[in-house]
Amino acid sequence: MVLPQFHLAMSLAGNLSFHETKQSWLKRMANFVDIINTFFASIWKSWYRVGRDDPRRVVHAVKVGVALTLVSFLYIFEPLFKGVGKNAMWAVMTVVVVLEFTAGATLCKGLNRGFGTLCAGSLAFLIEVVAEKSGKTFRALFVGLSVFIIGFVSTYLRFFPKIKKNFDYGVLVFLLTFNLISVSSFREENVVPLARDRLFTIAIGCGICLFMSLVIFPNWSGEDLHEYTVRKLEGLATSIEACVSLYFHDQEKDGSTLDVKSTKEMISKGYRIVLDSKSSDETLAMFASWEPRHSRHCYKYPWQQYVKLGTVLRHFGYSAVSLHGCLESEIQTPPSVRALFRDPCIQVATEISKVLLDLASCIRAHRRCSPDVLSDHLHQALHDLNSAIRSQPRLFLNSKNNRSTFKHAFNSNWMVNLPSAKSDAAALVEKRNNSNNSTENRRDQPVLRPTLSKIAMLSLEFSEALPFAAFAALLVEMAARLELIIEEVEELGRQASFKEFDEELVSIEVRRNETKENVKNRVLPSHEVSQAVD
Amino acid sequence: MVLPQFHLAMSLAGNLSFHETKQSWLKRMANFVDIINTFFASIWKSWYRVGRDDPRRVVHAVKVGVALTLVSFLYIFEPLFKGVGKNAMWAVMTVVVVLEFTAGATLCKGLNRGFGTLCAGSLAFLIEVVAEKSGKTFRALFVGLSVFIIGFVSTYLRFFPKIKKNFDYGVLVFLLTFNLISVSSFREENVVPLARDRLFTIAIGCGICLFMSLVIFPNWSGEDLHEYTVRKLEGLATSIEACVSLYFHDQEKDGSTLDVKSTKEMISKGYRIVLDSKSSDETLAMFASWEPRHSRHCYKYPWQQYVKLGTVLRHFGYSAVSLHGCLESEIQTPPSVRALFRDPCIQVATEISKVLLDLASCIRAHRRCSPDVLSDHLHQALHDLNSAIRSQPRLFLNSKNNRSTFKHAFNSNWMVNLPSAKSDAAALVEKRNNSNNSTENRRDQPVLRPTLSKIAMLSLEFSEALPFAAFAALLVEMAARLELIIEEVEELGRQASFKEFDEELVSIEVRRNETKENVKNRVLPSHEVSQAVD
Repeated sequence: MVLPQFHLAMSLAGNLSFHETKQSWLKRMANFVDIINTFFASIWKSWYRVGRDDPRRVVHAVKVGVALTLVSFLYIFEPLFKGVGKNAMWAVMTVVVVLEFTAGATLCKGLNRGFGTLCAGSLAFLIEVVAEKSGKTFRALFVGLSVFIIGFVSTYLRFFPKIKKNFDYGVLVFLLTFNLISVSSFREENVVPLARDRLFTIAIGCGICLFMSLVIFPNWSGEDLHEYTVRKLEGLATSIEACVSLYFHDQEKDGSTLDVKSTKEMISKGYRIVLDSKSSDETLAMFASWEPRHSRHCYKYPWQQYVKLGTVLRHFGYSAVSLHGCLESEIQTPPSVRALFRDPCIQVATEISKVLLDLASCIRAHRRCSPDVLSDHLHQALHDLNSAIRSQPRLFLNSKNNRSTFKHAFNSNWMVNLPSAKSDAAALVEKRNNSNNSTENRRDQPVLRPTLSKIAMLSLEFSEALPFAAFAALLVEMAARLELIIEEVEELGRQASFKEFDEELVSIEVRRNETKENVKNRVLPSHEVSQAVD
Repeated sequence: MVLPQFHLAMSLAGNLSFHETKQSWLKRMANFVDIINTFFASIWKSWYRVGRDDPRRVVHAVKVGVALTLVSFLYIFEPLFKGVGKNAMWAVMTVVVVLEFTAGATLCKGLNRGFGTLCAGSLAFLIEVVAEKSGKTFRALFVGLSVFIIGFVSTYLRFFPKIKKNFDYGVLVFLLTFNLISVSSFREENVVPLARDRLFTIAIGCGICLFMSLVIFPNWSGEDLHEYTVRKLEGLATSIEACVSLYFHDQEKDGSTLDVKSTKEMISKGYRIVLDSKSSDETLAMFASWEPRHSRHCYKYPWQQYVKLGTVLRHFGYSAVSLHGCLESEIQTPPSVRALFRDPCIQVATEISKVLLDLASCIRAHRRCSPDVLSDHLHQALHDLNSAIRSQPRLFLNSKNNRSTFKHAFNSNWMVNLPSAKSDAAALVEKRNNSNNSTENRRDQPVLRPTLSKIAMLSLEFSEALPFAAFAALLVEMAARLELIIEEVEELGRQASFKEFDEELVSIEVRRNETKENVKNRVLPSHEVSQAVD
C-alpha cells in the first residue's frame, strides 16, 4: 500500500526536480555563453586597440608571417632542401631573431649577427688549426680553456657602455657561434664545410629579413624619432597653454567654458611624453644611425642632435612639471590677485607655445626656422608682464633703497610669531598620528594631487603673493629656456641641411597657425581679456 | 775617371743615408713602442675602471666562463656525449642566452625559455598529429599556413604592453621552437625523440644557469633596487642642501670655503640619478618579482611599491631641477636681499635633507620610520621662513586691503613703457642675427648654463624679488612633497613588513646622523649663521 504512493511521490518529485534542473541548467548555460561572449569581446577589443594605436603593427606581424613562410620553403621544397639540408634551421632562427619592427633595428641586429658569426668562425678556425695536431687530451684541455677565456672576455666586454650600446647583440652572437663551432668541431672531423654552410644559411635568413624590412612597407626609426620630436614640442606647447588657462580660470566667472578635469589631463599628457623620453630617444637614434638614406630629405642625418634636442626639451619639461605643481599647491594666491596678472601671463604662455608650435612645424616640414622665430610678440608679452608686476609696488620689491627698513622689520618680527608655531607643530603631530592609522584606505592617488597636511601649510599663512611669484618666475624661466631649444633646433637644421628659411612658406605657415589658434581658442578661453577685479 | 769618384760619393751618401735611416728608424720604432704602450695602457685603464665600478662584473664574467666550460663537457667527455649527442648544442645555446647578470633576470629568461619551448613543442606535436595522415602536398600547405598564422599571432602579441613587459622572450622562444620543430618534422619521420632530447638538453642548460646564478655569488635584482632607492633618496638630500648653500653663498664674504664648480656637480649628480630612473626601476622590479625569497628580510616583497616610490621621487627631483634652475637663471636677486632670508632657507633645506636621509637609513636598515620623521624642526624652519617673508611688507603682498591701489598703478603704468620695449625688441633681433653666424663655435655646453640673451631679460629689469620668491616657493613646495614621499615609504614599510619603529634604534641613528652632519658641515658651510646685511 505504501509502495505505489511512494512511487507516485518519487516520480512527481523527479519531474519537478528535472524541470527545475533543466531551467537552472539553461540559466547557467546562458550565463556561461554571456561570460564567453564578454571574454571574446574584451579580447577582440584589446586586439583591435593595439592595431588601431599603430596600424604598422599589423603590417609588421604579416611581414614576419610571410618571412617565416618563405624561409620554411627551404624545408618544404625538395630541391631547396637538397641544397642546404639541415642547416636550414639556421635560416629560420635568423629570421625569428633578426626581423625587428624598424629597418634600423633589423639592420643593426642583422649586421651584428653577421659580423659576430664571421669573427667567431674565424677565431674558432684558428684555434682548430692550433689544436688539430695535438693529442686528444691536450686538445680537450685547449678547447676547454679557450671556451673559458672567450666566455670571460666577451661577457666582460658587454659591460663597456659603448659596446653595450651598439654591439651587445654582436658580442652575444660571437660568443654563441664560437662555442657552437669550437665544441662541435671536437666531434666532427672536417669543420670547414659545416661553418661554410651555416654562414650561407644565415646569409639567406639575413637576406630575407633585410628584404622584408627595407623594401616591403619599411618602418624607419629615423622617421619615428623625427615625428616623436615634433610631438614632444607640440605636447609641451599644449601643456603650457592649458596650464596657464587653468591657473587663471575663475570657476564662478567663466562658468563651464573650461572642463577642469580634461584640461588637467591635457597638461600632464603634454609633458609626460617628454619626461621619460631619454631611453627611447637614445634607442631610436642608435637604430636610426644604422639606417641608409631613404628619402631626399636625408643628406647625412645628425641623429645625435635629436638626442641633444631631447635633453633640452626634457629640462624644459621639468619646468612644465613645476608650473603644474603651482596649480596643485596647497597655498594659493586668491583669484582676485591672480586676475591682476591674467592677461600678460596668458600672453606670455601663448607666445611661448606659439614659438614651440612654430619649431614643431619647421622640423616636421624639414625646414629651417625663421631667424625671428623668437618673436617680438614674446618680448612684448614679457615686457607687459614685467610692467604689470612692477606696477604693484607693495607686491614685489622694486628698488634698492628700502633695504634698511626691511632689515628692521625683519628683526622686530622675528621672535613674535614663535609661540603660534609651537602650537601649529603640536597640531601637525596630532594630525599625522591620526592619519597613520587610516592610510590603508588611500590607494592609487595621482602624484600631483594637492599635497601636505593642510594644517602644516595653511596655518603658516604664507604670503599670498609667494605662489604667484613662483608661477610668474617659472613662466619667465621657460621663456628664457626657449632660446636653448631654438639653438638646438637651428643646429639640427644646419647639420641636417634642412631647406633654407623662405618668407613665402612662413606666411602660409603663419596663416595656418592662425587658423589653428582660432580652433584652439574655442576650447581654451586663453585670449579672453577680462580686466575686472572683484 | 769619373766612376771611382762617383762610387765614393755614392758610398759616402749611402753611409750617411744609412746612418740617417737607422736613426730615423730607431726614432720611429721608439714612437711606435710609445703608441703601443699608450694604447695598451688606455685599454687596461678602461678594463680596470669597468671592474672597479662594480667588482661583481668580474665575478659574473668568470661565472659565465665556468658555465660555458661546464656545458662544453657534454661534448668533450665521451660518456656524456653518448647520452645527448649533437643535441648538446642546445644546452650551449641556452647557457649563452639565458645566464644574465642578476638572479631575477636569469630566472625570468630561463622560465620564459622553458615555458615557451614546452608550449611550442606541444602545439607543433598537435599540428603534426593532424597533418600526419594527409598527403605530401596538403601537408606542405598545412605546415606553411600554420607557420604563417603562428608567426603573425605571436608577433602581434608582442605588441601588447603586458606581454612585452613580462613574456617577450618567452613568445620569441615559442615562435622559434615552433618553427624549428614544425618545419624539421617535415623531413624527419619521428619527431618525438627529437623534441624530447632537445627539451632534455635545454633543461641541462637551464639547470647550469640557475645553479650559477642562484647559488654561486648570486646578484639579486631586488637588492639592487633596494640599494638604488636608498641612493636616490641620499642623492636628493645632497642635491638640495648643496643647492641652497650655493644660492646663499657670497663669494666676497665666504671666501674660498665653497668650491662652486664641485658644488654644482654635486647638485646635478644628486638629482640626475633620480630623473631618468623610470626604465631601470621598472626593469629591476620586474626581474625582482621573479626572484625567490633569499634572506630573512623578505616576507613577500612589494617590488611595485619601489616603482611607486620611484615615481614620487622623480617628481620631487623635477622640483630639485627647478631649484637648480633658479641658481642658473639670468635674473638674480642681489646677494644683499637674499641674505635677509639666508638662515631660514638654509634651515628648511637642512631639515628637508635630514628627513630624506632619515628615510634612506630606514629603508637601508629594513626598518619602519618614526611616526614623527616629519619633525617639528622642519615645521619650525618653515615657520621661520614665513616670518622672515612676512616681515618684509614691501617685498610681498600681505593684506587684502590694498588691491584697489594696485589696479590703479597697474593701469597707469601699462602704456608708458611700450616704446622702450620696442627698442629692446629691435636690439634682441640684432643680437640674434649676429649670434646666428657664430653658433658654429658653440659646442658641448651644459644644459643648465646661464640662459637667454642677456638683452632680452636684463633690459626688462624684472622685479628683483621675483626669482627669490620662486626659490622660496619651490623650497616650500618641496617640503610639501616630502609628505608624499613619507607616505610611500611608510606604505613600503608596511607591505614589506619592515621591523617596527624602535625608540632605541632611532636614538643610535640620530647620533650617527649628527656625526655625519658634522662631517658634512666641514664641506658645506650651510649652518653658519650670518645675519649681516650689507
